[in-house]
Amino acid sequence: MAAPPDPQRRSERARLAILDAALSLCRETGFAALTIEGIAERAGVSKKTIYRWWPSKGAVLLDAVSDLAGRTALFPDTGDFERDMNTQLNVVVGLYSPQDTSPVAALVAEGQLDAALAATIRAQVIAPSIAGFEQRLASAQEAGEIPREVDPSVAVDLFYGPLYHRLALRLGLPDADETRVRIAHVMAALRATV
Amino acid sequence: MAAPPDPQRRSERARLAILDAALSLCRETGFAALTIEGIAERAGVSKKTIYRWWPSKGAVLLDAVSDLAGRTALFPDTGDFERDMNTQLNVVVGLYSPQDTSPVAALVAEGQLDAALAATIRAQVIAPSIAGFEQRLASAQEAGEIPREVDPSVAVDLFYGPLYHRLALRLGLPDADETRVRIAHVMAALRATV
Repeated sequence: MAAPPDPQRRSERARLAILDAALSLCRETGFAALTIEGIAERAGVSKKTIYRWWPSKGAVLLDAVSDLAGRTALFPDTGDFERDMNTQLNVVVGLYSPQDTSPVAALVAEGQLDAALAATIRAQVIAPSIAGFEQRLASAQEAGEIPREVDPSVAVDLFYGPLYHRLALRLGLPDADETRVRIAHVMAALRATV
Repeated sequence: MAAPPDPQRRSERARLAILDAALSLCRETGFAALTIEGIAERAGVSKKTIYRWWPSKGAVLLDAVSDLAGRTALFPDTGDFERDMNTQLNVVVGLYSPQDTSPVAALVAEGQLDAALAATIRAQVIAPSIAGFEQRLASAQEAGEIPREVDPSVAVDLFYGPLYHRLALRLGLPDADETRVRIAHVMAALRATV
């Protein structure tokens, strides 16, 4: 006899279908043209189902991006901090690429125009990511790769700054080679006594 | 006898009043609530006068910001590159402050959502500013303050990155002391052979 349908599993399947639909539609149409109706149609659920869980398309996209970043933008620890920073930063650049249709880039831009949305993005996505960075930096400091005096808030600005300079001013996102050169400079900066 | 009215001077006065009105209104209401009607009223001109020179509120604001940045965000050359970078970067941070009501921050955020606007901002504001930076860097290289091998595109990402990291993710703009520490690190990075 087949097992009876599991409502919890079905509801988790619907949730994932909605998050997937939000990401793929945003990539196709951009954030401005994204609608709850479109997401519902793509995910094969009713609009009512979406509104039961989320108040707006921005809220759906934030959960989708948060889920995506939480699964991909992790901090590896191979024992080589510079190599691990290259790995992680290239993943982050990938999340913003191509900038014109990246749901992550759209959400971050919207956050610059909307302080309340920015606070939610910060709490849900950015703060956990910075905590992950700080943990990886601390382990590099313990291993003697980076001096103990280095201030994590300086280090995070220096490592991630080049990407956000390019992103905010649309100067073209850095490729792996450009990222490698910038990280090498930041490593030198953090090792120097200032 | 009084001189006859000069139409060119009157038209330049109107242009400056419109740019001033656009900046001050944007600071008060934010970009979303800014209207051509409001700018016309504040500047004491007709809407027709504005539409004769600009197609949209974004175009007015871009000219206003371009004018403001061109007058203020200059690169001094006192012979001390690190000091001059502090001066210039603090002016740029000032243009973005406070982030919630800064017309410059609003324009840069809009540019992230609108590739055509971004291209105009880049051509009219960012490219001249980067050219100014490169000229000041070259003079620091000639003076032996910075090694000749330093790539200007790496240097610009490192110097301006921390500001844009904070701006894009709304982490709070760096104050003069934070900027000083970050610049000192970047100077060390550029002096080190990587």
